[in-house]
Amino acid sequence: MALTQPEAVERWARDRAIDLWVSFALPDVAAAARDDGALITRVDETPSSWAVFEAMGDAGVDDVRRVGVLAATPSGLSAGRAAGAQAVVGIAATSAETADLLLVEPDAVVTPSGFGSLYDERYSSGRLLRPQVLLNPGPALTTERVKRAAAGVDLCHREPEYTVLDRRIRDRLRAVAEVGDDWAVALLSGSGTGAAEASLRAAVRPQSRVLVAVNGVYGERLLAMATRAGIDVVIAEYGWTEPADPAEIAGLLETELDVDAVAVVHHETTTGLLNPVEAIAAVARDRGVRVVVDGISSFGAEELTLEGSGIDFLVCSSNKCLQGLPGAAFVLVSPAGRERLEAVPATSVYLDLAAYLRGSEAGSVPFTPAIPALASLDAALDELLAIGADEHRCRYAERAAALDLVLDGLGLEPIVAPASRSRTVRAVPLPGGVSYEPLHDALKRDGYVIYAGQGRLAPEIFRVCCMGALGPEIIESFGGRLAAELDRAAATV
Amino acid sequence: MALTQPEAVERWARDRAIDLWVSFALPDVAAAARDDGALITRVDETPSSWAVFEAMGDAGVDDVRRVGVLAATPSGLSAGRAAGAQAVVGIAATSAETADLLLVEPDAVVTPSGFGSLYDERYSSGRLLRPQVLLNPGPALTTERVKRAAAGVDLCHREPEYTVLDRRIRDRLRAVAEVGDDWAVALLSGSGTGAAEASLRAAVRPQSRVLVAVNGVYGERLLAMATRAGIDVVIAEYGWTEPADPAEIAGLLETELDVDAVAVVHHETTTGLLNPVEAIAAVARDRGVRVVVDGISSFGAEELTLEGSGIDFLVCSSNKCLQGLPGAAFVLVSPAGRERLEAVPATSVYLDLAAYLRGSEAGSVPFTPAIPALASLDAALDELLAIGADEHRCRYAERAAALDLVLDGLGLEPIVAPASRSRTVRAVPLPGGVSYEPLHDALKRDGYVIYAGQGRLAPEIFRVCCMGALGPEIIESFGGRLAAELDRAAATV
Repeated sequence: MALTQPEAVERWARDRAIDLWVSFALPDVAAAARDDGALITRVDETPSSWAVFEAMGDAGVDDVRRVGVLAATPSGLSAGRAAGAQAVVGIAATSAETADLLLVEPDAVVTPSGFGSLYDERYSSGRLLRPQVLLNPGPALTTERVKRAAAGVDLCHREPEYTVLDRRIRDRLRAVAEVGDDWAVALLSGSGTGAAEASLRAAVRPQSRVLVAVNGVYGERLLAMATRAGIDVVIAEYGWTEPADPAEIAGLLETELDVDAVAVVHHETTTGLLNPVEAIAAVARDRGVRVVVDGISSFGAEELTLEGSGIDFLVCSSNKCLQGLPGAAFVLVSPAGRERLEAVPATSVYLDLAAYLRGSEAGSVPFTPAIPALASLDAALDELLAIGADEHRCRYAERAAALDLVLDGLGLEPIVAPASRSRTVRAVPLPGGVSYEPLHDALKRDGYVIYAGQGRLAPEIFRVCCMGALGPEIIESFGGRLAAELDRAAATV
Repeated sequence: MALTQPEAVERWARDRAIDLWVSFALPDVAAAARDDGALITRVDETPSSWAVFEAMGDAGVDDVRRVGVLAATPSGLSAGRAAGAQAVVGIAATSAETADLLLVEPDAVVTPSGFGSLYDERYSSGRLLRPQVLLNPGPALTTERVKRAAAGVDLCHREPEYTVLDRRIRDRLRAVAEVGDDWAVALLSGSGTGAAEASLRAAVRPQSRVLVAVNGVYGERLLAMATRAGIDVVIAEYGWTEPADPAEIAGLLETELDVDAVAVVHHETTTGLLNPVEAIAAVARDRGVRVVVDGISSFGAEELTLEGSGIDFLVCSSNKCLQGLPGAAFVLVSPAGRERLEAVPATSVYLDLAAYLRGSEAGSVPFTPAIPALASLDAALDELLAIGADEHRCRYAERAAALDLVLDGLGLEPIVAPASRSRTVRAVPLPGGVSYEPLHDALKRDGYVIYAGQGRLAPEIFRVCCMGALGPEIIESFGGRLAAELDRAAATV
């Protein structure tokens, strides 16, 4: 019987990871697991996957993802791997034995007395490493199949099997963005910040300036990228809950000379604020000014028409609203953007956007790509395109509406006005008498990871972000936990 | 019975990925698998892991890593996942059905007629995606457990469970490098090139110059990094098979003013040439000049004493001789290097080495880290430290000696003299009448991926690189294949 996601979360938060340990002819090393309520079956016959399956049958555990295998011999560990056991742990007394056992690739090898601390880190009901509902603004929760895709075969990036993956991802990203083949896609290894910096460096010709809209930490970061790269800036600054103003930007483009590009963050995760990037891009387009949009935390979730919009560089990452793993970033480049970057001398090797595009046009890549992160992105795009990009964005909208309902019911008013709120992040003032850390820790014990405020907002707010592979019902169950914790805090004031 | 690695390679090259397909109540969609020699067992009972195990017993297949499950229902796919089947494939006729089946996270969902092409890409004896012996200079072959580590639980990088991973990796990298806790470790997301550029930008104060030793593509890349960053350079240039000369560099440091740092590649994978970085660093150290070493393709394989050497920034990546996955890079920074970078204004946001170090000192990270690549690096360091860094390097030396023996037996003389050869890469002139592409393709059919020459050497040479999780016997089996292919080419001239 499949669990609902709130049931799964309950289990993540409270249950041990492994219900049955099959121990091949070992004296009792798994006391920690027994004390934690797990079953231990000692098997003295010759190790085999059949022996593991039989022990599962006897114990009534029908899922190898709830089974661990313990052994002190390569054959025992191999049996665990052949049975597909979720945890395969070797027990070795010496470093020579450890090295031998590692050859059959168990998850870990420990000494007999070392099992307890491994157990506490990975498998116990109180374990450190457990799935959690990540309500931080990325990395977000991903599906198991997206994670498994990172563990695919090792590939050389100069071989055609890599090129197939690379091209498919570019095509699918264009499909999500709803742009034509005349848009280029640069795939970079690293976080979205690297891709944003590469775009800024590519968009502004020498002796020109960039207009940067700033109303949060990520706008400030764009500004720092420009100034550190030696690019002169015009700043359009706003309060942190105030969207950038297209009319004011239009005015600045009239009065300030030599502005070659506008850079703006679509979704400021600082506060959960959306900037009106389409209106800003239209203003820039009409004046022949290129537009760089940091869409790292919006792409896939928010409505955004790229074709004809005036947006020339849309910067994104693999790990937020596309629900891939962190490690890859990309830039969607319009034909005008593609033309622009040929007129800008490179000021970096690693952050040279033109090199990535020329590479892809030649069927090559300039530097070793983060292939596992790309394979996971490909798997995530499977899931996104199966329901359709429209429906994916709708689900984000619905989840945000559900979150607003929860917050409203608790009398918590996000600091950004409804018209400018994103579909993923809410920054909410901490109620009187409630401090962030105890609230965070209490919710984390229940399996929900919220996020602190950033910069000058850190002491005043907390953030809840609903990116990632989260079912709609998860918001309601989170709301229940949040209500209970706020009640408890109020009672202790 | 465990296969030897050459036997495994034979299997990778020739065999299908899956021996038994368990089909839950499906009409015959798996003709492609049957035609390829796989067994198909149709099961009409209620899907369960037990039904999969029973089908395995009947077919005599004892390893779930050789088993696939096909189903058109969520319960069938769940049974496949609960049984730990290597391949779990959904069959759906419509996009709505596809989206439904994806909820239980099969590896793929295809239409009944689409199974054949999926099969050809992933599972057939002629499949595109298969393990291969990667004899290119990274990404190298990794163990299954290193790959599995990338598929661990999703983590938020602001939580203590990430900090545990981050600190452990830094400690272990210091252990491999045999340096004290006074050395800092910066972890970056991206390829080694990004970390090299960050180091160069951090090492040279304004109004100073960097001396760059150039004798291959990666020395040229260091040079491009400096000039694009606006750093003035002094170039010490050598032939591509000629090691950099410490005495000449000492002379240049005497005559050229304002040289603040020396940058040199330890191992030029262009040719397989080692530069005498310890001697060069000693010369620079004696003059108070900081030293940046690109150790991307040498760290873990070559002997290198860092403590007291004068080397201040050693740049490395997760995916070469450490045998992790691509996607993470790091820099080991000496105390003098740490001091230097505080005197250099940042000229980039993403490539600001100081930000990474200050972050780690504060228990934080500046940008979203590539957590899956780091988790894999941690697993790879498990394996390396289990045998010991010394022994790991010895094995690289032994494998290189075996490769030299093979090449010598074939009358193939690497273009680099023995005294300057690395432990991983050999660049070898193509024998008369042999072109790279047919040679590459023939060896690839046998499961071995060699590598083309780079830059101006491309038409003349091929490269064989023995980084990664390769047993010693793999070199001999590769040698046999190479000999056969060269014989065949000679016979057809």
